[in-house]
Amino acid sequence: MSSQPPTPSALRVVPGTVPSTPKAWTRRRQSIDAADLAKGVLAGDRTRLARAITLIESNAPTHAADAAALLQHILPHTGNSFRIGITGVPGVGKSTFIEHFGVHLCDAGHHVAVLAVDPSSSVTGGSILGDKTRMEKLCNHPNSFIRPSPSSGTLGGVARKSRETLLLCEAAGFDIVLVETVGVGQSEISVRGMVDFFLLLLLAGAGDELQGIKKGIIEMADAMVLTKADGDNVLRAETAAGELRRVVAHLQPGTVGWKIPVHLCSAIEKKGLADIHSTLESFQSFTKDSGVFDRRRKEQEGAWFRNLLREALMDWFQTQPGMVDRIQSTQEQVLAGRLPAALGVQQVLGALSAEKD
Amino acid sequence: MSSQPPTPSALRVVPGTVPSTPKAWTRRRQSIDAADLAKGVLAGDRTRLARAITLIESNAPTHAADAAALLQHILPHTGNSFRIGITGVPGVGKSTFIEHFGVHLCDAGHHVAVLAVDPSSSVTGGSILGDKTRMEKLCNHPNSFIRPSPSSGTLGGVARKSRETLLLCEAAGFDIVLVETVGVGQSEISVRGMVDFFLLLLLAGAGDELQGIKKGIIEMADAMVLTKADGDNVLRAETAAGELRRVVAHLQPGTVGWKIPVHLCSAIEKKGLADIHSTLESFQSFTKDSGVFDRRRKEQEGAWFRNLLREALMDWFQTQPGMVDRIQSTQEQVLAGRLPAALGVQQVLGALSAEKD
Repeated sequence: MSSQPPTPSALRVVPGTVPSTPKAWTRRRQSIDAADLAKGVLAGDRTRLARAITLIESNAPTHAADAAALLQHILPHTGNSFRIGITGVPGVGKSTFIEHFGVHLCDAGHHVAVLAVDPSSSVTGGSILGDKTRMEKLCNHPNSFIRPSPSSGTLGGVARKSRETLLLCEAAGFDIVLVETVGVGQSEISVRGMVDFFLLLLLAGAGDELQGIKKGIIEMADAMVLTKADGDNVLRAETAAGELRRVVAHLQPGTVGWKIPVHLCSAIEKKGLADIHSTLESFQSFTKDSGVFDRRRKEQEGAWFRNLLREALMDWFQTQPGMVDRIQSTQEQVLAGRLPAALGVQQVLGALSAEKD
Repeated sequence: MSSQPPTPSALRVVPGTVPSTPKAWTRRRQSIDAADLAKGVLAGDRTRLARAITLIESNAPTHAADAAALLQHILPHTGNSFRIGITGVPGVGKSTFIEHFGVHLCDAGHHVAVLAVDPSSSVTGGSILGDKTRMEKLCNHPNSFIRPSPSSGTLGGVARKSRETLLLCEAAGFDIVLVETVGVGQSEISVRGMVDFFLLLLLAGAGDELQGIKKGIIEMADAMVLTKADGDNVLRAETAAGELRRVVAHLQPGTVGWKIPVHLCSAIEKKGLADIHSTLESFQSFTKDSGVFDRRRKEQEGAWFRNLLREALMDWFQTQPGMVDRIQSTQEQVLAGRLPAALGVQQVLGALSAEKD
């Protein structure tokens, strides 16, 4: 899948096409040299990759310009990975699966980065430490890079940082990026919007294996995997897989013409990993041949841009003097049934034209 | 379900709480008297209800203030209907179902308004004429009111008009509003956001009865109905219903604790209508008792307000001189990979602060 493996120890030649840092940014610079950091990332230097991600994740306003300059530098070197979203409810064995599947991919010659998207700081904060410990084998593999999710911010903010982190990993030469999400909230939709392939992990239970899955998640999946299909659990997993195949046969797949496979997997017995890998490769060829791959990337990028614009505009609007209170009190009037919604909006926006006059 | 049946011929007493028309609106008024129109609507006068809806649907800027004044007048008298979304792909027998179910509800003493939400003007334009002809019995029932969808505008615009039309129907005393949508696009999501109950119509076919249904629609349904369950089709419909019950057992219902029923229905043989009616009533009690009904209405109203605000803000922004071109060319640079999305957004928004300085 890769054409650009990272060379962690040697310094890679940085192409001359990297744009120079615009003046407006260098003026503000403190101790960070975006061009130098970009050079390190492009050379596959993990320490500098980690530092670059920290810069992207920073909420400090003074870092915004450096982060933008960094992204500008690495942008021409992004887009070359296969981006895979992995979701499943807590307890499904996500960390274990990612560790074993990650090692499988690394052993097959891939360079694998693992990111996490999760808006809830406390939960993830805990789970990340756990992941880093549990994913020891993957962590120590020379071809891997694991990055916990940012520990603060709204989902929108975290998703944004994760997307930019993904770009950094691509620039550093990782040809597979696994983006993990917790499977019980809105974060899957964000992740679906930044990956090429979406994998849903499920645990075979006593007939209620899908009960915990959030509405709509099933229909975002490009493939499903029943985890822990070992020992006493094999028969249950097989029954559940049969049931799942019947369910998905009734759903329209996200990618027209793609038949959603349901795999069994045992991370402990290393069963099923090769099948899942081969499903990934089939999907990649299938969508690249049909042009869906590139089209979806463009659509994701366009939607991403427009969302950022809409959000940034709303943010700007809310920083206008007194605006937060004004929106709040108008919304209360609307909810109380004293003001039609459309009229409330006109009144709130009226402040804008009044101010401009 | 109703506490306020309309009295079509007599003039109802209009409560003194109707707010007076603000000066800014009366100044602009041409031939429309919003207060008078509101009085007619509240009295259940269908001619004036139709005229009021036409005013709401008007795209003429001069009508906006009158429409707002009208809404302000009727707002205290809204919210008293049970709002039901009905969806299904073309060919499922939506018009026939709505006609027979509508007559069933009217005969049971309800006052039923039927609206349609569909962004595609040409298709709907045709289907509406068809509906009006096909729904002859419902159309002529003294308790019913049928309104085709607005024939122009974006989905957002149409959805907005439909929502306001729904409010007008409630003010006119209709205690059940059926909102029809075509079931193949984004319009279901808009409709889901304005109704209390979402009904999915399906046609039993040769094992592929769900194939045509758009992703995510199934999981928005509060109940499903297999149409045309008559004659040769009964057995097929029963098999399909069994299959569907198995599928929905695996999905998390939109309303926690509610078991999604799958009904068979034959509009011709008038079979199943009473069951569906009783499902509606159960759902209404269930959600009202648990407080979900009111909470969902508040959430819908809040989300509606914030969406309108976000859209209006974006509209305002795009009317700034040269902004459309600026957004377009920036987006192209982003899609071409020459500019990070976040930086593109900063550049576009920069125009705003520059202008304000």
